[in-house]
Formats: sequence, structure tokens, C-alpha cells
Amino acid sequence: MMIKVSIVGATGYTGGELLRLLLRHPHVSVVHVTSETSAGKPISSIHKFLKGQLDLLCEKVDLESIAKDSDVVFVGLPHGAAAQTGAALYKLGVKVIDLSADFRLEDLPTIKAWYGEHPAPDVLKKAVYGLPERYREKIRKAKLVANPGCYATTSILAGLPLMAKHLLGKGPIIVDAKSGITGAGRKLENMYLYSESNESIQAYALKGHRHQPEILQEWKAVGGTASELIFVPQLVPMQRGIFAVLYAPLKKKTNAEELQKLYAHYYAKEPFVTVLAPYESPEVKAVAYTNYCQIGVSVDPSGMYAIVIATLDNLVKGASGQAIQNMNLMCGLDETVGLR
Amino acid sequence: MMIKVSIVGATGYTGGELLRLLLRHPHVSVVHVTSETSAGKPISSIHKFLKGQLDLLCEKVDLESIAKDSDVVFVGLPHGAAAQTGAALYKLGVKVIDLSADFRLEDLPTIKAWYGEHPAPDVLKKAVYGLPERYREKIRKAKLVANPGCYATTSILAGLPLMAKHLLGKGPIIVDAKSGITGAGRKLENMYLYSESNESIQAYALKGHRHQPEILQEWKAVGGTASELIFVPQLVPMQRGIFAVLYAPLKKKTNAEELQKLYAHYYAKEPFVTVLAPYESPEVKAVAYTNYCQIGVSVDPSGMYAIVIATLDNLVKGASGQAIQNMNLMCGLDETVGLR
Amino acid sequence: MMIKVSIVGATGYTGGELLRLLLRHPHVSVVHVTSETSAGKPISSIHKFLKGQLDLLCEKVDLESIAKDSDVVFVGLPHGAAAQTGAALYKLGVKVIDLSADFRLEDLPTIKAWYGEHPAPDVLKKAVYGLPERYREKIRKAKLVANPGCYATTSILAGLPLMAKHLLGKGPIIVDAKSGITGAGRKLENMYLYSESNESIQAYALKGHRHQPEILQEWKAVGGTASELIFVPQLVPMQRGIFAVLYAPLKKKTNAEELQKLYAHYYAKEPFVTVLAPYESPEVKAVAYTNYCQIGVSVDPSGMYAIVIATLDNLVKGASGQAIQNMNLMCGLDETVGLR
Amino acid sequence: MMIKVSIVGATGYTGGELLRLLLRHPHVSVVHVTSETSAGKPISSIHKFLKGQLDLLCEKVDLESIAKDSDVVFVGLPHGAAAQTGAALYKLGVKVIDLSADFRLEDLPTIKAWYGEHPAPDVLKKAVYGLPERYREKIRKAKLVANPGCYATTSILAGLPLMAKHLLGKGPIIVDAKSGITGAGRKLENMYLYSESNESIQAYALKGHRHQPEILQEWKAVGGTASELIFVPQLVPMQRGIFAVLYAPLKKKTNAEELQKLYAHYYAKEPFVTVLAPYESPEVKAVAYTNYCQIGVSVDPSGMYAIVIATLDNLVKGASGQAIQNMNLMCGLDETVGLR
Repeated sequence: MMIKVSIVGATGYTGGELLRLLLRHPHVSVVHVTSETSAGKPISSIHKFLKGQLDLLCEKVDLESIAKDSDVVFVGLPHGAAAQTGAALYKLGVKVIDLSADFRLEDLPTIKAWYGEHPAPDVLKKAVYGLPERYREKIRKAKLVANPGCYATTSILAGLPLMAKHLLGKGPIIVDAKSGITGAGRKLENMYLYSESNESIQAYALKGHRHQPEILQEWKAVGGTASELIFVPQLVPMQRGIFAVLYAPLKKKTNAEELQKLYAHYYAKEPFVTVLAPYESPEVKAVAYTNYCQIGVSVDPSGMYAIVIATLDNLVKGASGQAIQNMNLMCGLDETVGLR
Repeated sequence: MMIKVSIVGATGYTGGELLRLLLRHPHVSVVHVTSETSAGKPISSIHKFLKGQLDLLCEKVDLESIAKDSDVVFVGLPHGAAAQTGAALYKLGVKVIDLSADFRLEDLPTIKAWYGEHPAPDVLKKAVYGLPERYREKIRKAKLVANPGCYATTSILAGLPLMAKHLLGKGPIIVDAKSGITGAGRKLENMYLYSESNESIQAYALKGHRHQPEILQEWKAVGGTASELIFVPQLVPMQRGIFAVLYAPLKKKTNAEELQKLYAHYYAKEPFVTVLAPYESPEVKAVAYTNYCQIGVSVDPSGMYAIVIATLDNLVKGASGQAIQNMNLMCGLDETVGLR
Repeated sequence: MMIKVSIVGATGYTGGELLRLLLRHPHVSVVHVTSETSAGKPISSIHKFLKGQLDLLCEKVDLESIAKDSDVVFVGLPHGAAAQTGAALYKLGVKVIDLSADFRLEDLPTIKAWYGEHPAPDVLKKAVYGLPERYREKIRKAKLVANPGCYATTSILAGLPLMAKHLLGKGPIIVDAKSGITGAGRKLENMYLYSESNESIQAYALKGHRHQPEILQEWKAVGGTASELIFVPQLVPMQRGIFAVLYAPLKKKTNAEELQKLYAHYYAKEPFVTVLAPYESPEVKAVAYTNYCQIGVSVDPSGMYAIVIATLDNLVKGASGQAIQNMNLMCGLDETVGLR
Repeated sequence: MMIKVSIVGATGYTGGELLRLLLRHPHVSVVHVTSETSAGKPISSIHKFLKGQLDLLCEKVDLESIAKDSDVVFVGLPHGAAAQTGAALYKLGVKVIDLSADFRLEDLPTIKAWYGEHPAPDVLKKAVYGLPERYREKIRKAKLVANPGCYATTSILAGLPLMAKHLLGKGPIIVDAKSGITGAGRKLENMYLYSESNESIQAYALKGHRHQPEILQEWKAVGGTASELIFVPQLVPMQRGIFAVLYAPLKKKTNAEELQKLYAHYYAKEPFVTVLAPYESPEVKAVAYTNYCQIGVSVDPSGMYAIVIATLDNLVKGASGQAIQNMNLMCGLDETVGLR
């Protein structure tokens, strides 16, 4: 079986990572890659690791022929454009995995507050949130999957067992989240220059970050009662990786061993979530270039606060790897194919 | 006026940074540098930037001749050894600035719990905690100064105004603190290898970190009522810099503008503490290689949580720069000499 | 078909990279991993990315049982120890791929000059130099393969077409070679500490480097007449990658287009060597985490000097990836299996 | 004595570094800083380390008032614009130090070939090449100094003794030069993004680099007979630093000890050039944030090739530090003031 795959908007970092992973996938052939600004150029002139491996030229978008030639289309466009394109492709009957935020939120007023009016609310209803750890069965049948954000995947996975098991005490949950620089995409902005971000750390979005509603939506969906999420994203000088520390008040006193057991049990059957020993810290290095999320569980000395650390590669489990995991599910394959 | 300075234990990173800064200082001459393992070698063969600048040889420690020849001695030894040496030098009548943790804590049971029995409790009583923002006048008269730790300086400065102004609500304070790799000193351990720490982040000391009592001691001294400090230190792939995010519950609703004003006022006369605009994040890059601490003040949407970010260079304001600031005070100089 | 594979000396960086790649290989199962210092510990406690993926414990070496249980053994020991172990395993009849330098050189006096007396000269004669671009057919039949060094692979591939086509003029060839820090292995030495090697470059082995005879041996084997190789290795602050610039005097005036054509033709059928456009520089980034070597060909303005730049990942094509390429050949598989 | 200093074009990295160094200088006050794009903003909002240290606003350029208010003006504009501004300021009678390439080359046809027609050839004749190691006396009297490039300073200093002592044999000199990313200035181009340049190396300008004529001009001026310079610049993932390896054929056989002695003697009185022991490699780390150039001298085994390694900080000795060294000379100060 071969799945014919296209990527609309293939020149960004998530596009490059999709291609890196798809070339290894035993059941995929890539048929179209599009780029408005690089149409006509070989995709290997943008993602240079492709030289000698993939000979496709970037094309201008032609949704009809893409839909006709493909089984699955990954949409790697900026917010807004992604909604338009994703909706159009969905209506053309092809399976769509959108890597933007455009189909992730369900609540229209929330969407409006953070992103403005949604351009395709009818199609939005058909979208499934592409977190296999939660929606595996729905994803198998989905025609349109909203691939989760990298900060959101990390934070949601760090918090899910607390929410699902109703362990939360009163007070806000804090997520102090560090991201490698590819997390920002291939943007020509001053703060992403090597000479600005190397040997430095800075926080941003201190008045609020778009991933907050995404995280809260998924925590609530599993029974979470977090009144507030204080989310502080920070840029750290490394290529890849999200490293999130979640601080959560507990309803009753617990210890790290119990809590770790609960996490280990919750994720026992998950192929890509690994729960470490109590008080063990995960390391970005251990998950870089993999589709794994590693989670370390600690408790403060009073036993009333959980300290949960989760890490993953923002380009793999935080974007393109998870997108392929979703593709596998949508196409009836074992979800781990091409990802181990 | 020339101050004769010696460094006992000069081959570590703080020793190197002391020398870098002292060579620039208009009123200092360095007379002895000691090292047990490198005795006889030029100090410039250890700190290679000294080639062509400083011609001293490392000597074995001879406390009497050091005390005789020096006005001020910096002690850069490991914990335990520092207490012995610092106490002996103090008794020999020379001014001592100790960069270890050995004279920082006042409470003997706390010391015992974290470090074991203190070898010189009588001398300990004479020590002044070398944070000029708090103890400027005492430092001027001190014979023995305990130079604060880098994590502690950052965290204390981030929290002081909240404590002094009694703004704290109930619940623990969280400090999520990231350190560059020099923060660990020149240790030949696996986790400090380039290939281990580059492109990675990891937390450590998740069961408790020695800087916690130091931070709490100083917050309490100014009236702070923090019941608990959850302190999570993390290694980040950069050379220098501490970047600490403090999350503190507030007694009553406030906003970032008010809180920022309060911070700016509290530190208005401080030569090395800069308070940024509300919601502005400091950047490690802006303080690296300087003696400044930059502080950014934000408040969560509910107005009930302060988010205070502080950053400094662990080798300068977090160690050797602050030590020289203390030396300036102890010797009757303007505290900023050689540090701007 | 499943190949049973063991790794003797599995805790170094090449051992880790072997495991990363072998887990992806569709026809391999790993049966033994050994470590003297970590015997009894899970290999995933050393290479943390293995958590949840591979459950083996490190064992002490038992060559007989390893030979009995395995089709192929990778030897990842230090020089000297590798020769002993490799020879013993060879005599036990199992296929051996040695990643050290111990079986790379043919000439006994040269070996003696650089490494001392060879402990198993009889077995040495049976070894095949594991550079598939040169010895593909011999490797298919080999029982013992000496996997080339990372500097050597890069330099040899950069120079081979010049040598084979007899284009060399008089005078030494210069190879200015930069290596990422993993190139040095997992050594607890000062110069490999993050705080020493980050934000720095230094050259080393300025009196001569062990890879010189290896490079010259292979250049001569193809007809190269280089009288001398000036090889200057340098440590550069990155994780992975060799970036070698070769400067070679030419026998007659040429231009970059011709020379590039010649290189492209020479490597036309090679699955893992990519020749770029004339005057195009390769980038480490494009080959990191892959088994590819990219080569860029330029000529100086006079047309009398070739400037050939080659880059590869020292842990993949420069070590473990090439070892697996060799394993594929030795086992009758397509040499690219598991490496694309 | 206070020197009134202005900077035209102060928002780039060399502007920032000038300010960092000038603030430490005991005899300088900064009066104007200009920026077309940031006029009206505090300079500390661009160079954030200036917060709390320097309160100037960026101004639009007004050459007359700048000339009137200043003793010395540093010009930090792009090539072309710098020539215009530098010439105008020169004519207004103020001392000018230009950090661009516009006044570095003397030969008009060479200038035309690399940069196009020079806009002010009359003023060009008045310019002195600002390499104190060569032109100290001329600089003392100069009204217009062309501050050398960072690659050029490194390469020239590495080669000068060979040239001045007529040691060169036949054949091209090769300079393999690596630069940290700030060497490129604050340019919003793809290749300078963190995610592009981190964990990578690439060469550029393989058809020829603008610094070649600058280097050759200065080597010739001291009697050098280099027929050709093969110069290969490379970007390396670090903030600051040039690390150049020069390979030069020798007229007669020599050894490293002799050659090192010759270098040491040649630079014996230079305050900012340090010659290391034979076969010792300099390290970028040892010169970063200093105005020093460190040089290591080796010879190949045949004794017929010199291998000279030079390193400096591209923003200090390679730009702003050297500019201040020149300012000191032009103003009758000890040239090391503010730079140790």
C-alpha cells in the first residue's frame, strides 16, 4: 500500500521535517509540494538535506489537482490562509491534516478573541483535534485533523492525568515553557537571528499566549477544573525542543511515587509517551529528532504541589511527527509506522 | 590608592572572572593567586585570556604570607575548604570575601541540614551577607563577606520588593530558574560535557536545592512571609546567565503598572539593578559580561499573581562582579569602580 | 530475514548512534550490548532516548556467547582493546565491524609509528577497509571490516576523484578540517566541557594527526601521488559534523565546471555521496543525522588550485551509519536499508 | 581631558560594541548617536545592555551639528553611504574613524572592481589605514582613519612577519578563515537566522571575497611577494570570533621554534598581539570580549610550510576595539586606554 501525499506550504521548518520523515516512511510517496514564493525551484534547494534524495519542484497551489492526485494533504500555511485552504481541500474530498492553529479551537467566541472571525465555521465542526493520546478512534475516521501546537502538546500531555483523575487543588496552574528557536518557524525577525538569540533567554507574550485556550480546551475535555493557566513561553538557544515545567496545586497531599505510578499507568499503552522515574528530569536531548514525549513527575516537599516536566521535539511530536502519526491513523496503518 | 588583592583558589571560572575584572580595576594590584593542582604554572596557562596581560605563577597556599601581603583576599574554594581558609584568613586580620556558600547562612541547624557541621561557627557570626542592595552599610565595615550565590542573588532581587512591601498572598512562591553551564563551575562531570548539555535542557535537584534556605533567609530578613519556596533549577545551553521567573501569589489584586512602579521605586538608587517597563522581558544577552541585574515585572490576567523575571550574569553579578562590588565597599571606594 | 546484532562497548556516542539507527532498521534485532563500567544497568539509562524503546541491560563481555548469539558484532572499544576483541571475535567466526582505528592501516611500520605494535597482525591481513565507495565488493565478502574514521572518510571522499584521475600538481595537499564535539567521543577532559568548547574554536594535533596515514593510504590505493598531506583538525562548537576544506594543487589549469562534472561523474552511482553545483558550499546542517556526504567543488581564480569542501555527520557516515552500510553489504542486503 | 564622541549609524553590532567600550573609557563622553530607522527611540531600546547606563536618543543625521559638537566621529554605515558621510565629516574638520570598507583600499581600479566608483577619491587620499601595528605614527596625525575589517586584521597580522622578513616561497598563500555570526552584522537574511546557522558550518564567497585586496595591499606594503591569496571564509556557530589558519610556502626549510621566535620578536612591543608557544593553538575563547589578537605558529613536518593561526574578537580588535585604539592614538592618549 502506498499513500500519495502532498504538502501545501512545504518550505517552512515543519514542511522540511515532514519531508525528512515521509522519505523514511515505507508506505508513502510524495506527489506535490507547493510554495508561492519558491514555485519552480527544486524543494531540495530550500531543504538542502533533500539533495540526491527527492527531486520534486515546488509548485504554485492548484487545489483541485492536488486533491485529485493525493490521498492525504498536509497544510503548512500561516494561520488564516490555512483555514481557507484546509476547508477547500476538505470539500474536495481529500484527507487533510492542518498544522496551523486554524482548526484546533472549537469555541467560536474564543477563536474570535484570539484570531478573529473564523472563515469556515461549517468545516471547523468536522475537524478532529489530532492528539492520538486522546482522540485515536476519532482520528481514524476523520477527514480533517487539526494537528496540535508544540507548546500545547507538551502542556496537555503534562497535565492530562492530573485532570482526568481530578487531583487538582485550588489556584492557577503554572506552565513555564521553554522552546528551541525552530519553534518560531522560519521567520525573518530580529529576535530569531543567531546573534540575538544565541547565548540568551527571553520570555515573550507575557500578556497572554495563543496556546492557552488550546491547552485549557483539552484539559477541560477530560474533566480538568483548572480555573486559570499562567503560561510563560521562553526562547532558549537550541535548535529543537520544548521543555515545559508544570506546577499544579493538588487537592490532597501526595508523594512523587504515587503520582508517578498514576502517570505511568495513564500512559502505559501509549507508544510515544514515556514516564520516567519519580524525581527524574527528562532531557531535551533524549527526545530530539524523535516522536517521543518524556515526562518526569515530582512533588514539592509539602506534598501539595505537583511538578511535572514534559519534553518533546517541537518539529516531531510537536508538529510533523505527530502529523504523520495522525496520517497513519487516518489511513488505517499502525500509528508508529515510520516514526520509531 | 592601590588595593593589594590575592585569590585563593584562582583556577575556577569565578577565579578567572575575578582576574578579568580586577585587571580593569584602576585601584587594584593582584599579588598572589593560588592553586593546589596547578602550583608552579603560570595562571595564564589556565585562563588563557591572561596571556600577555598577567604574569603571575600559581602558588601553593601560604595563608600567613598571603595575609601579610594583601589588603583583600578572595576565597574561591569548594564548600568546606572555604570555611577553614576563610576563618583562618579572617583571624589573620585580612579582609576576606568568600565566594562559597560557607558563610552565607546564619542558622546553624539549617547549615547542618544542608552542609553538615560548620567548622568555624565563631567566625561565621562575623560574616556579612554580601548583597549590597541590602547590606551596603554593614559591608563597608565588614572584615568577612559571604558573597551570595548566583541563583540566590537573582531570586532574592526578584522577590525583595514583594517581601518588603508585604504584598504576598497565601501559597508557595515558585522560582523556575535557568542557568548557563558555567554556573556549575569547572567540574569534570558528564552532564557538563558539551555533547551532553548542548541542544538540551534538564532540571536537577528536584528534591531540593541548597540555594533555597539562602533565598528564604534573605526574604524573611526583609519581612517576607513566604511559607514555601518551590525552586526548580535547570541547565540551559549557554555560557553565562541566570534567568529566573518568579511566580508569587498576591494579597490583593494589582496590575503590572502599579507593581512595576513599586519595583522601580524600590531599586531607584541601585547602580546595578534595572527595572524594565511593565510586561517587558529582560534578556540574558543584555546583562552578560556586566554587573547588572535586569528585572521585568508582569501580572497574570486575574491580577492575583506576580510574574517577576530577573536575569544576571552568574559569573559577574552572580559571583565575581558582586565580589568586587563588595571589595569596593569594604575599601571605601565607590562601589561601581571597575564594574561599569 | 533478521540479523542478530551485538555491540561490544555500547555506551559511547557511536554506540548510541548505532542503537538509534539499528532500531529503525527493518531487518535487525539487537541481542547483546556490553559495557565494563555499566554492566547491569539498562542501556537506556546511558542513552536516554532509548527509554521505552529498548529494554536491554548492559552486560560484561563474554565473547563466546556473543559470537554464538550474533550474526554481526560491532566493536566500539578504544584503540588497542578493539584489536584484541576484534581479532578474538573474528576467530570465533562471527562477522565483525570494528569502529576503532585498529584494523584500518595495512602497513605495519606505519601502525607501529602511530599506535605501537599491532597485537594481531595475522587477523589484520583479513580486514577490509570499510569504505563502500571504494571496496563495496570486498566488503560483501568480508568477515572483518575496519570502519573508517570520520575525518578520514570526509577527507578521502573529498580527494578521491582528484587522485583517481591523476589531476594532482606538485606540492602538499592541505586539509583544514573542523569537527563537532561528539567527534572526540565521550571523554571527560577539560577541553570537551561545554564551558570550554562553546563559543570557541581551537586547533589541535598540530604536530601530526593519526588520521593522516589513513587518508594517504586510501588516496595512494587509487593512484594518488600526494607527497604530503597537511592536516589541521579543529574543534568547533556544534554537536555533530565534519566540515573539511581540501586545497590541492592541480597539474593543469582547470575550471570549477569541469572539475565539478568530473566529481559528479565519479560519484554518480553512489547512494550516499552528493556532488553540489560548482562553487556551491555544502552545509553541515544538510547532512546532520543522515548518512550522506555532500561535496562542493570550486577552483581558485588562477585555475591551478582545487578547493573541495566535504561534509558529513561524524556519528553517521563518519561512524555508525557507515558501519550499518557495511553490515548491509556483509549480509547481502541493499546497502541503503535503514539509512535513508 | 574628555573626548566628545559621536556615532553615525549606532544601531548595528559594531555600534553597540563601540558604546559598550566607550562607556568604560575614562576620557570619553558620547554626545550623539544616529539612526535613520530608529530616530527618536532611546539607543538603550536597541542595545538593551545600555538600560540604566546611557540615556541618549537616536537622532537623524545632522552632519554639521555632529561635527560641531564632537572631537571624534565613528561612522558605522554600510559601504557607499559611509564614504559620503565620512568625506563630508572630514571636510567639516572633525576627526573621523570609518568602520566600513570605503576608505581601506588605495588603488582606485581595485576599488572599482570590487565596490564600484569611489564617491570621494580626493578624501580617500587623506585616509590612513587604521592598523596600529603598522601605522601607529601616521594614525596619531590622521584626520580620517579607515578601520580595518575583521577578516583582514586577523589575516594581515597572521602574515605580516612572513612578509616583512621575506620568508615566502612560491605558490599561493591559503587563508582558511572562520567567523562567528556577528561578523556578518545585524542583517535580516535567512543564513543568519539561528535555526539556519546553529549546528552548521558553511563556506561562502567561494568565487572571491572583498577582503582579499585589503589583505594583499597590506602584505605588499611591508614587502610581501604573495602572488595569490586563496581566502575561504566560513560561518561557524558562535557569537564572536575570527579564527584564521594561514598556510604559507616557505623559501627555505625552517622549524616552529625559529619561526615562533621571529614572530615573538616582531610583535614584542605590541600591546595587543600575543604570540603563543610553538605548536600551541590559540582559542577564540581567550580573546573574546578583548582587544587582543593571539597568534600560534607551527610548521609542517617537511619544514617548508608555515601554519599560522590567528584569532581575535571580530567586534573588538576586528572592529570597535581597534577603532577606539585608533581614537586613542588620534587624540594623543595611550593607545590601550579603556581597552585592557
